[in-house]
Amino acid sequence: MKVGIINVTGYAGMELARILYQHPEVEIVSATGRSLAGKKLGEVFPHLAPYDLTITEEVDEADFIFSALPSASSAAACAPWVRRGVPVIDIAADFRLKNPDDFQRWYGEPHPAPDLLEQAVYGLPELHRERIIKSGVVANPGCYPTAALLALAPAYAEGLIEDQIVVDAKSGISGAGRGTGSSFGYSEVNESVSAYRVEGHAHLPEIIQELAGLQSGREPGLTFVPHLVPMTRGILVTCYAPLTRPMTPLELRSLYRSFYGTSPFTRVVDYPPATKYTLGNNMCLVYPTVDERTNTLISIGAIDNLMKGAAGQAVQNMNLMCGWPEETALESLAVYP
Amino acid sequence: MKVGIINVTGYAGMELARILYQHPEVEIVSATGRSLAGKKLGEVFPHLAPYDLTITEEVDEADFIFSALPSASSAAACAPWVRRGVPVIDIAADFRLKNPDDFQRWYGEPHPAPDLLEQAVYGLPELHRERIIKSGVVANPGCYPTAALLALAPAYAEGLIEDQIVVDAKSGISGAGRGTGSSFGYSEVNESVSAYRVEGHAHLPEIIQELAGLQSGREPGLTFVPHLVPMTRGILVTCYAPLTRPMTPLELRSLYRSFYGTSPFTRVVDYPPATKYTLGNNMCLVYPTVDERTNTLISIGAIDNLMKGAAGQAVQNMNLMCGWPEETALESLAVYP
Amino acid sequence: MKVGIINVTGYAGMELARILYQHPEVEIVSATGRSLAGKKLGEVFPHLAPYDLTITEEVDEADFIFSALPSASSAAACAPWVRRGVPVIDIAADFRLKNPDDFQRWYGEPHPAPDLLEQAVYGLPELHRERIIKSGVVANPGCYPTAALLALAPAYAEGLIEDQIVVDAKSGISGAGRGTGSSFGYSEVNESVSAYRVEGHAHLPEIIQELAGLQSGREPGLTFVPHLVPMTRGILVTCYAPLTRPMTPLELRSLYRSFYGTSPFTRVVDYPPATKYTLGNNMCLVYPTVDERTNTLISIGAIDNLMKGAAGQAVQNMNLMCGWPEETALESLAVYP
Amino acid sequence: MKVGIINVTGYAGMELARILYQHPEVEIVSATGRSLAGKKLGEVFPHLAPYDLTITEEVDEADFIFSALPSASSAAACAPWVRRGVPVIDIAADFRLKNPDDFQRWYGEPHPAPDLLEQAVYGLPELHRERIIKSGVVANPGCYPTAALLALAPAYAEGLIEDQIVVDAKSGISGAGRGTGSSFGYSEVNESVSAYRVEGHAHLPEIIQELAGLQSGREPGLTFVPHLVPMTRGILVTCYAPLTRPMTPLELRSLYRSFYGTSPFTRVVDYPPATKYTLGNNMCLVYPTVDERTNTLISIGAIDNLMKGAAGQAVQNMNLMCGWPEETALESLAVYP
Repeated sequence: MKVGIINVTGYAGMELARILYQHPEVEIVSATGRSLAGKKLGEVFPHLAPYDLTITEEVDEADFIFSALPSASSAAACAPWVRRGVPVIDIAADFRLKNPDDFQRWYGEPHPAPDLLEQAVYGLPELHRERIIKSGVVANPGCYPTAALLALAPAYAEGLIEDQIVVDAKSGISGAGRGTGSSFGYSEVNESVSAYRVEGHAHLPEIIQELAGLQSGREPGLTFVPHLVPMTRGILVTCYAPLTRPMTPLELRSLYRSFYGTSPFTRVVDYPPATKYTLGNNMCLVYPTVDERTNTLISIGAIDNLMKGAAGQAVQNMNLMCGWPEETALESLAVYP
Repeated sequence: MKVGIINVTGYAGMELARILYQHPEVEIVSATGRSLAGKKLGEVFPHLAPYDLTITEEVDEADFIFSALPSASSAAACAPWVRRGVPVIDIAADFRLKNPDDFQRWYGEPHPAPDLLEQAVYGLPELHRERIIKSGVVANPGCYPTAALLALAPAYAEGLIEDQIVVDAKSGISGAGRGTGSSFGYSEVNESVSAYRVEGHAHLPEIIQELAGLQSGREPGLTFVPHLVPMTRGILVTCYAPLTRPMTPLELRSLYRSFYGTSPFTRVVDYPPATKYTLGNNMCLVYPTVDERTNTLISIGAIDNLMKGAAGQAVQNMNLMCGWPEETALESLAVYP
Repeated sequence: MKVGIINVTGYAGMELARILYQHPEVEIVSATGRSLAGKKLGEVFPHLAPYDLTITEEVDEADFIFSALPSASSAAACAPWVRRGVPVIDIAADFRLKNPDDFQRWYGEPHPAPDLLEQAVYGLPELHRERIIKSGVVANPGCYPTAALLALAPAYAEGLIEDQIVVDAKSGISGAGRGTGSSFGYSEVNESVSAYRVEGHAHLPEIIQELAGLQSGREPGLTFVPHLVPMTRGILVTCYAPLTRPMTPLELRSLYRSFYGTSPFTRVVDYPPATKYTLGNNMCLVYPTVDERTNTLISIGAIDNLMKGAAGQAVQNMNLMCGWPEETALESLAVYP
Repeated sequence: MKVGIINVTGYAGMELARILYQHPEVEIVSATGRSLAGKKLGEVFPHLAPYDLTITEEVDEADFIFSALPSASSAAACAPWVRRGVPVIDIAADFRLKNPDDFQRWYGEPHPAPDLLEQAVYGLPELHRERIIKSGVVANPGCYPTAALLALAPAYAEGLIEDQIVVDAKSGISGAGRGTGSSFGYSEVNESVSAYRVEGHAHLPEIIQELAGLQSGREPGLTFVPHLVPMTRGILVTCYAPLTRPMTPLELRSLYRSFYGTSPFTRVVDYPPATKYTLGNNMCLVYPTVDERTNTLISIGAIDNLMKGAAGQAVQNMNLMCGWPEETALESLAVYP
């Protein structure tokens, strides 16, 4: 399969190249990056030196496209490929929200290709595996929504939680992307934790849309606050919600395990997971439990934001779309410690 | 004032020594530390080398006592001094909970000096300044409760929040104390975030007790989950609760500012604070705001866990007890970046 | 191939298990760990959960043995296997020094199996590939010596440097091993750099022995100072030596490239490498250059101390001993950023 | 004393403001910062909120000037003040090198005020205290030269070392300054160590010039390689040189202690220092020892690069120039852990 990566020079694009190096069915034939076009991939990113590939301005020809452009500029680059029938996975946000008005509200511009939204599938395999398999354009979920949805979906689908849901998310700095200037400079984010976009982060509507889909469209009341923590990779979400009926932790874990069944990359665990258990790996670890004093669900999800939260999940989606084993190129264990 | 520090060899004790070095009214005459007795303070902790002080097994004579022993062993060491009328600040948890049964439930042993609980004052100056001034024994608050109470007190006192309060706390690793072995080894906690004691942390009853005191004894429904983040110092608490009536962020900030008045070490700010803004400093930064979509209070507190969360607050309490300006020895600005 | 790992519960042992998970020719049949015997591997190390393996006290039966015991206790555990003709790779130091007196001097005890020293091969494939292929017992090099030797060998072999060699090494904290107590606690090693064992580290004689082997036994004058830096993985060595004759940086790089030829895991690069370019990966990046003002060789080597510095190199050696492609199970790219 | 700070918005300028907050003799009347002019200092840097000061474009009137502008643009801003007779401390490099050709060679531009070089004093109090006291313009030393010179000066002055000196320096990221873009972004420098400017760093000629001054102008052969390590503050230099005659570590320590006498901010210690022992503090810890196997001096220096390596030393120099106690405003102990 000849693969093109649009914008290999951001963190998600780089990570795609890293993963696909081990994919037996894939050859990267083209990888773009505006300002770095003409350079060897390994010159810019030494860990990718084994690739003998030159960064270009445009994808020439490909049988499969990944776009890792920034949100709001990705759809326009993807659209021609979609219209030509080439399968596309968009790692940006452009095809995630079904309602183009939501896109405008949260991303500040009119949607560049609203006619394609209907055919796009939200690429969270644990919720939409069958539709992804048949899809030609997949909207790869955001990093926070991936962790939050996997931590909340079984409980929300079951009607155990409805409103007053709190998603408190902690992300490593790579979530801010590459080349983000001094506000993410080492000296200032190191040894510090802070919340940001407290009044509204663009990943919120995704979480709401996808939870709503699990309860015939009923939208939850949900507050989402993202935080930056001083580490490179990893997202931990801690979700809280009043339970609509009493549950023991064991019942809850059992419910979650049924819900995820044989999904290879979501593991329900019996201990609070550390993000480090997923570093470099595509797993989401979910720990649902109950604060029995207050009858509150506490559900914790841990992922590597560049893997299950971005490029790893994109490869998982590609495997589904192409009929390959879902785990292909995603088998290596987390790098620990 | 001749001061004795019981257990100078933990992080809180060390930090006390660091702060008091600049205190014009204080001389440390005695500092204990079981296994290190006989050594020079500066030999064990090179940053304290300017002290010419030898660690001893017992405090000999002192006009003022700080105990920085671990919880459950501190009260027994403090009791003789309290009974002799020497003013004592206990940085451990032993005098914090008014009900000795609560102590037994959360700390696993009978309270060693229940008769002294009544005279002990909970040493959060923002709530109990007048009582601290007159007290002979002060229970220095826990690190998490300090941040959580300062983030929640004005709203709770006003009846704006009542139940379904969530306190999601993120702490640097020094909160775990010194000499805690491999589970806090660098290689394993670095580049990782995780929750711990999800089902119940001993700081919870403190938070509930003190909030209850603000609403004639009404105990809130409150869920508290602490997390470890890879940094040495700092606590950020993000608190959530449904508002009992609508408020704008501005009204809320104004309410908080009135509540804290001229308290020198709690500053209500207009941006989400970073813990790094408090590193090495006694300030608590509080940012209360509203998720207007869901009518939810979000209130964020940031402190240095060893300063306002432990030794700094202890010195603030000492200043109050001794009639000195509250800021004495606590004026240096945060070390940033 | 049925493989046994003696002491899977240290960092090198864990890392071996992580790598071998992807090895198509290998099945781990036995993995020991004194205090954790009886536990599931995935219970102790969640990232190894996909293994369905219980830690035992002893290796039962195996066709290939890795020992990841601490130095000075490993040889005794390996000896019976060696004598039985089962191939063994010792990741500890026990078989590295040819002269048993050196072992005693640097490790403080008599060598437990001096009769086996002669048949043991020092497992640095770049120097001893042919002998490793034929060997039944391989002494896996230390982490510092691996990086230092690969940075110095071509120049020393060529007689370009002889004496007054300085090896200034910077290691991540995982080099200190697992369970090393408070002196490697996060709070104390974070945000700090320091040198240790300045007067003599046990890896020094290895470096000298192996350099000597490149110049018919001539031992270099060499000073080695290791440092701890606040990161989990990675070693950077910066080596300095007066050049015996003038060289340009280009000549030097060319010499190094000839020396390493097609060795798959040592890459001579044209820029000062960062350890992060090797994280989770078996590569050693070497950057040799010249301070032309003083006619001094500067040669920098970067590795992941747990990979090329320990378990990765052990798997590379196993591949050689077993006649498999040298890169088997070692192909994944570094995890960056 | 009415003080003006030119460019308060870089790290050195910020740090000056932080220190001077505790200086009893000083009032900051003016603080400039191009792009941030018009903003309150505390709005830009929350830890400086207690200052009620607005950033301006120019210093209006002042009795004492600190310039924290980047090198090569500082001299032009300082010159008018110097000519008017207002005492100036330049934290940039512009007045450090006596020979204006050296400036041009290392900083790439003609010196903007070569006529002032002669009266400028190199502001390392341990070497030039008497001249600083009488000076009107002080060139504050670079961070690396401060640590390197304090580690080497006593041995060089004594003729114990002459050539083949190696200075291997490890710096925290704040040394790169504020607003330095993605190459110092957290995600890329975290968990990584690398060397930079291996072929020549602009701090090298300072080190050589000042050592030469200690041996009647004899310039040493010296190789200097700086490294970045993942921490915010701190520099550790490890210096190596063949000894011209045998010395024991004790003799060496004794020599160093005599050399530094009562200098308040250089302490000769008996253990390898950690940079963390100096965090937020103006101390330089020096550990000289001997590799007796090779008769090599090893001398290690540790400082906080923003304190003794920049702003702290500037305040120390100001105290000397103004006749105040040298330690004024510099007494607080290091923040540890």
